[in-house]
Amino acid sequence: MKIQQEQIRAYNESHLVTHKRKFDFIASEISDLEAIIQKLQAFQIAIPSWALGTGGTRFGRFSGPGEPATLEQKIEDVGLLHALNKSSGAISLHIPWDIPKDTETIKSLASSYGLVFDAVNSNTFQDQEGQTHSYKYGSLQHVNPAVRQQAINHNIDVIKQGVSLGSKALTVWLADGSSFPGQLNFREAFQNTLQSLQEIYKHLPTDWKMFVEYKCFEPNFYSTTIADWGQSLLLANKLGDQAYTLVDLGHHLPNANIEQIVSLLLMEKKLGGFHFNDSKYADDDLTAGSMKPYQLFLIFNELVEGMDARGMDHAKGLGWMIDASHNLKDPLVDLLQSVEAIQLAYAQALVVDRQALRKAQNSNDVVGAQEILQEAFRKDLRAVVAEARLRDGGSLNPVAQFREMDVRSKLTLERGTNIKATGL
Amino acid sequence: MKIQQEQIRAYNESHLVTHKRKFDFIASEISDLEAIIQKLQAFQIAIPSWALGTGGTRFGRFSGPGEPATLEQKIEDVGLLHALNKSSGAISLHIPWDIPKDTETIKSLASSYGLVFDAVNSNTFQDQEGQTHSYKYGSLQHVNPAVRQQAINHNIDVIKQGVSLGSKALTVWLADGSSFPGQLNFREAFQNTLQSLQEIYKHLPTDWKMFVEYKCFEPNFYSTTIADWGQSLLLANKLGDQAYTLVDLGHHLPNANIEQIVSLLLMEKKLGGFHFNDSKYADDDLTAGSMKPYQLFLIFNELVEGMDARGMDHAKGLGWMIDASHNLKDPLVDLLQSVEAIQLAYAQALVVDRQALRKAQNSNDVVGAQEILQEAFRKDLRAVVAEARLRDGGSLNPVAQFREMDVRSKLTLERGTNIKATGL
Amino acid sequence: MKIQQEQIRAYNESHLVTHKRKFDFIASEISDLEAIIQKLQAFQIAIPSWALGTGGTRFGRFSGPGEPATLEQKIEDVGLLHALNKSSGAISLHIPWDIPKDTETIKSLASSYGLVFDAVNSNTFQDQEGQTHSYKYGSLQHVNPAVRQQAINHNIDVIKQGVSLGSKALTVWLADGSSFPGQLNFREAFQNTLQSLQEIYKHLPTDWKMFVEYKCFEPNFYSTTIADWGQSLLLANKLGDQAYTLVDLGHHLPNANIEQIVSLLLMEKKLGGFHFNDSKYADDDLTAGSMKPYQLFLIFNELVEGMDARGMDHAKGLGWMIDASHNLKDPLVDLLQSVEAIQLAYAQALVVDRQALRKAQNSNDVVGAQEILQEAFRKDLRAVVAEARLRDGGSLNPVAQFREMDVRSKLTLERGTNIKATGL
Amino acid sequence: MKIQQEQIRAYNESHLVTHKRKFDFIASEISDLEAIIQKLQAFQIAIPSWALGTGGTRFGRFSGPGEPATLEQKIEDVGLLHALNKSSGAISLHIPWDIPKDTETIKSLASSYGLVFDAVNSNTFQDQEGQTHSYKYGSLQHVNPAVRQQAINHNIDVIKQGVSLGSKALTVWLADGSSFPGQLNFREAFQNTLQSLQEIYKHLPTDWKMFVEYKCFEPNFYSTTIADWGQSLLLANKLGDQAYTLVDLGHHLPNANIEQIVSLLLMEKKLGGFHFNDSKYADDDLTAGSMKPYQLFLIFNELVEGMDARGMDHAKGLGWMIDASHNLKDPLVDLLQSVEAIQLAYAQALVVDRQALRKAQNSNDVVGAQEILQEAFRKDLRAVVAEARLRDGGSLNPVAQFREMDVRSKLTLERGTNIKATGL
Repeated sequence: MKIQQEQIRAYNESHLVTHKRKFDFIASEISDLEAIIQKLQAFQIAIPSWALGTGGTRFGRFSGPGEPATLEQKIEDVGLLHALNKSSGAISLHIPWDIPKDTETIKSLASSYGLVFDAVNSNTFQDQEGQTHSYKYGSLQHVNPAVRQQAINHNIDVIKQGVSLGSKALTVWLADGSSFPGQLNFREAFQNTLQSLQEIYKHLPTDWKMFVEYKCFEPNFYSTTIADWGQSLLLANKLGDQAYTLVDLGHHLPNANIEQIVSLLLMEKKLGGFHFNDSKYADDDLTAGSMKPYQLFLIFNELVEGMDARGMDHAKGLGWMIDASHNLKDPLVDLLQSVEAIQLAYAQALVVDRQALRKAQNSNDVVGAQEILQEAFRKDLRAVVAEARLRDGGSLNPVAQFREMDVRSKLTLERGTNIKATGL
Repeated sequence: MKIQQEQIRAYNESHLVTHKRKFDFIASEISDLEAIIQKLQAFQIAIPSWALGTGGTRFGRFSGPGEPATLEQKIEDVGLLHALNKSSGAISLHIPWDIPKDTETIKSLASSYGLVFDAVNSNTFQDQEGQTHSYKYGSLQHVNPAVRQQAINHNIDVIKQGVSLGSKALTVWLADGSSFPGQLNFREAFQNTLQSLQEIYKHLPTDWKMFVEYKCFEPNFYSTTIADWGQSLLLANKLGDQAYTLVDLGHHLPNANIEQIVSLLLMEKKLGGFHFNDSKYADDDLTAGSMKPYQLFLIFNELVEGMDARGMDHAKGLGWMIDASHNLKDPLVDLLQSVEAIQLAYAQALVVDRQALRKAQNSNDVVGAQEILQEAFRKDLRAVVAEARLRDGGSLNPVAQFREMDVRSKLTLERGTNIKATGL
Repeated sequence: MKIQQEQIRAYNESHLVTHKRKFDFIASEISDLEAIIQKLQAFQIAIPSWALGTGGTRFGRFSGPGEPATLEQKIEDVGLLHALNKSSGAISLHIPWDIPKDTETIKSLASSYGLVFDAVNSNTFQDQEGQTHSYKYGSLQHVNPAVRQQAINHNIDVIKQGVSLGSKALTVWLADGSSFPGQLNFREAFQNTLQSLQEIYKHLPTDWKMFVEYKCFEPNFYSTTIADWGQSLLLANKLGDQAYTLVDLGHHLPNANIEQIVSLLLMEKKLGGFHFNDSKYADDDLTAGSMKPYQLFLIFNELVEGMDARGMDHAKGLGWMIDASHNLKDPLVDLLQSVEAIQLAYAQALVVDRQALRKAQNSNDVVGAQEILQEAFRKDLRAVVAEARLRDGGSLNPVAQFREMDVRSKLTLERGTNIKATGL
Repeated sequence: MKIQQEQIRAYNESHLVTHKRKFDFIASEISDLEAIIQKLQAFQIAIPSWALGTGGTRFGRFSGPGEPATLEQKIEDVGLLHALNKSSGAISLHIPWDIPKDTETIKSLASSYGLVFDAVNSNTFQDQEGQTHSYKYGSLQHVNPAVRQQAINHNIDVIKQGVSLGSKALTVWLADGSSFPGQLNFREAFQNTLQSLQEIYKHLPTDWKMFVEYKCFEPNFYSTTIADWGQSLLLANKLGDQAYTLVDLGHHLPNANIEQIVSLLLMEKKLGGFHFNDSKYADDDLTAGSMKPYQLFLIFNELVEGMDARGMDHAKGLGWMIDASHNLKDPLVDLLQSVEAIQLAYAQALVVDRQALRKAQNSNDVVGAQEILQEAFRKDLRAVVAEARLRDGGSLNPVAQFREMDVRSKLTLERGTNIKATGL
């Protein structure tokens, strides 16, 4: 299924008057609006191939109808998103769940939807059918060099897949760790992981980045070998210039100040990218912006400030991706909500009066600093984000249009109700 | 010092055009706006007498200039707030920090500022000069009946003070608990507390409420005898119809769903009132809405829904109070920011499309429910709250006007720089 | 496979000298030792039928060899445990994972291993093949009465199964809740749940108990409808005398004081039973005593004190069960370790000098109270627990003997390597 | 007051039979016992000068009788501890609370009690009378270079004091941070802190260490500029070889795996030392080992393993210090309990069968690894620690003897009841 430009145009037309009224009002409130809209247009958030089906917990999964059965259908799904929001122009593949059989065909299919391939993701947290060694006790950290080598080889394969697709980054998320005191020698687990990553790093093309993700717990429940930003940064520094830390918003201990971490990683030139989602308790993998929208804004506030301080291109300087699990919502609508929330937080960060903020900071004007940030956050910028989409041919309201068009029913007619998409 | 109506009128005049533009825009977006504005006008948030000076931590306190030295000056302070925001028309006294010497004089002073006396607060978490028994090991829970009786008597005294001032509620917050395993018999501590509260309850005038506050930890670090809403509710139920649970936003374990607690307490007819503040880590006592404004909105969303379901008067049905600590900001500006954030969250809750929400819930439309809530939250309702103030003769922007008028400097000229207000 | 009494006797014989030396030493340190040993002998911890296979997380499962394929094999597994430790003389079935085809055969099989049937557990957190309504959006809380009725009927069926097996309790754990703000009306979800439970309660035989379990989060990530002990207690009180709260150690927010909760539930006569496990981060479902053994002791300290205060029979007064997930360890060894840790904590609680503790508490002797508790905890009581087993014909060291006998290899020979036991 | 050797000898004599029975039993269970006892004898834990008085919270302080009024009396207090436990042979001074008037006199006084001077501690988290600039908005991070310079100068002064006393390390704990979003530019706060530390570092004698402490929150409630081990390590690496990270057990986010952090810092050669205490909720500053004794053991398990791997001297390689707050207990008894718990955890770590553990780890024997650790933890090693003290002339039971001798009453007679010792 493809959403036609005409359908979007028709939808927009019927909502244009309302949009224009809102946009004109907010436009009168913001200086530099054109520059902001251009930045929003350029800002693309990659969609992970594993998040197009219904997600689950260890207690079960309640799959929905019309899920994508193949990589082609997953690309079709992302195509639908991108047609509507013009901000999801990249797909991030998970190997081995989504190995293209014919790379060129897949590339041209993606291209037909205006999509490129973002970071490729390796998987050494599960055993695959026919695998020689098990990852039950870890992969890159494993006490047995043969297991480590198998995991290294898998990552090298993933890089190769990525090269043929035009990806420019490898994301390594490791479940490696331990669930009981005594199980691991922490130091050796770290050293093994480092050496394994060094082996993989050798195979990284010179124009690639390696993203080293961290997570405090789950699926291991006592220690995780790359558990926090400090451990990831340590590894990234030892690996070299192409290695970076990747921040997933759900991977922190309770109450962690993520925005400060982001700021320091940017300072150290070691922030690589983001996995967006939201959470209340742990790695809940909820829709971005659904739980703590102010925190999302504060993170973008640091991102914009930190990237500008280094003269980075907002759109290209870092890797932007969603990593969420859609247990209850239609995955595609969930993703549309996430992208919208991310764009909104980005827009809010862009309208922060940086000069005034700097002045408030320099005079320890705590009240003033809060007023300046909240002035940006309280502004209703949804029409600005909508305008950016409109100019690119996207829908004024992707979520509403998706639901009005009843996209899922059409997909279900095409695909049936019994598919369970690969993924978590 | 008193802010003259004329000063406010002058300030508003110079910002009226901008306000009108914003208000007209948002007015066109909201149905039932007049009813909402009336509710906002009626909604008063009490100011605690102990929060008018600089707050501190166990590591120290950095007092500011012009702090109030007397109860009269504290009332003057609240008068300043109320003149600006018309939403702080009540003061909540803490005994023994703020015992009026002459009740009638104090009442008429308060009255001259348009203030009434909200709940009175007892203090059995500190020892006062000359006190017979120490509260080092608890007060109403104490193993020694004589200590309990002393604490009971103090609470009865506080009620008497409150009666003479026109208060209608007693707030009991107990630090009682233990810092080490074994220190307490939990059951006996609970029973002693219950019996002590029953003694106090006997002295409650029939038109009074007793608010039983809970807190998970601090100043005790192992157990608190009224640690969570369940324990408070248990006590309130055993005490009788006039006893209620009081919710302080900073008194919960990490990640607690406070809005659900609020909803259930309302259902049980046992929610008594609120201590507003915000926090990231523990009982941080920060400005309301400064850290998690979406959570504040979600709480008000439950409050409005739950009060409406029971036909309660929003303004009178529950006790609304700020309980924050102003370690870095000017206390008065901090309070103005808090009141503004609370009013804003209340306004957002009032504009939620309840019929649509109910429909979404009844059809398990999770996406729709989120869209409906965020539609209310994303709207910029600041002009609505400002309009409510404007109609009551308050300032369009209390924080800005307070700063422009340099109120603190004037207070400092009057009061000097070396006063440390009583409180925490 | 069955472990012969002779094998255990032989094992014990070869370790008897060492045991006797240790036992004699510790026996000289403890008064009332015989009474303690008798209590340990009487204390049985039920094994859940779903915990006999390898557990998993949402990221995957690494199954082990020799897992039980049938209910018969699960009973065989528990029989092995009980032969070794003489403390696992009960099995708790999960319906529909473990529906007996022929109740009488199953009962006599269990009986042949010395096992009885503990509480039966319903499952409305997953959809079963062919089920009319889905539990995706809840079961007993569901907005649709037909879904609620289906879940009610399932619970009534489970009671029937239990009656035929000789069980005396129904454990209801609900995943019901919501993952996004707005999804649920908290009040109605609670009321629906209450009414559904009331329907089930009507079918409870008069000598049965209903255990209402609570959990703060997972698999729902915003709210859980029975989220904490306060909500469970509210329901249990509204349901009637046969309804009780069940405490699972992993179901609390970070830092919760579980021992205080236990004490208060006992005081309210509403503590029903326990699901033992351990955790560091969330509902990690680790081996009991593997992470926080002192906390486990403190909980037992409250249990013993509270049960004695009410004159309850330790062994029969409450329901004792393990609820853990064995992701990395052999499930049977994991369970042996858990039972050992629970017995040890119970033994430590039994040797607490209660009179001295009471005296310390009554004089606010905080130092003394800590010394008394730690005196009990620091004592090495493993030989006491071993002696209790020895007298019952169990193994001096179940974990070691299980491993020495290579039980798992034998089970694998019998059962093969490709079975995945039903469960989580 | 001084405890005479004779008093200790008399106490020990009356408990010797019991001790010998216990010691002989445990001695028969442990190989290499003599080496372990020697390590315990060599292991000294410094006492902070600020922890000799009653501690408090922001809600108040309940001082006790006989508190030390002067540095001399504080040294006397530590002398009492050391006389009893022979493990508290060092005192850590806090400047400016404890500036010696006459260094030589103070040194010889300390020496008369067998005490040396451990790390000196600077204080830029409070304003001192007459100070030019306030630390309200930070010290080493401050936006104003003059404030930073004042704080730098203070640290240089503290080093000078330390040099004259024979200290060999400076501990820098900074409260610097922010309480509200926007208040700080995180990057600049970090850079200012780094530059300030670099200035101080220049004045560090070549045989000194600088300990950079971290803390997640309090007294700031949004961000702390040195908030976690990653930030501390970043600074220590940029500063140079003499800079190290200092770990305070209470300074972590909920559920942090402190033992893993310790292991990695040792690996990086950047672990400097420890502040021991225990906690349940936050920086509760409770008696070491009173809440999570197993965690304390696991930390020592990593310390012993990591120090041995690098061939470090356990006693001298790192800085060992208590940092607790004694709100309810007599400070001196609290400190005796802490030292005992630390020694016990150290002893447990020393008896871990490292070869077996390594073997279990290398074969992913998770069950075995747990058994090995718990074997060490479950052993009752109190008699071993007592024996180490006995051989050094200390008391078999310092806590009991302190209480029996009624030391506090004697101190109160000497000092009176109205002293409030300087400190928190």
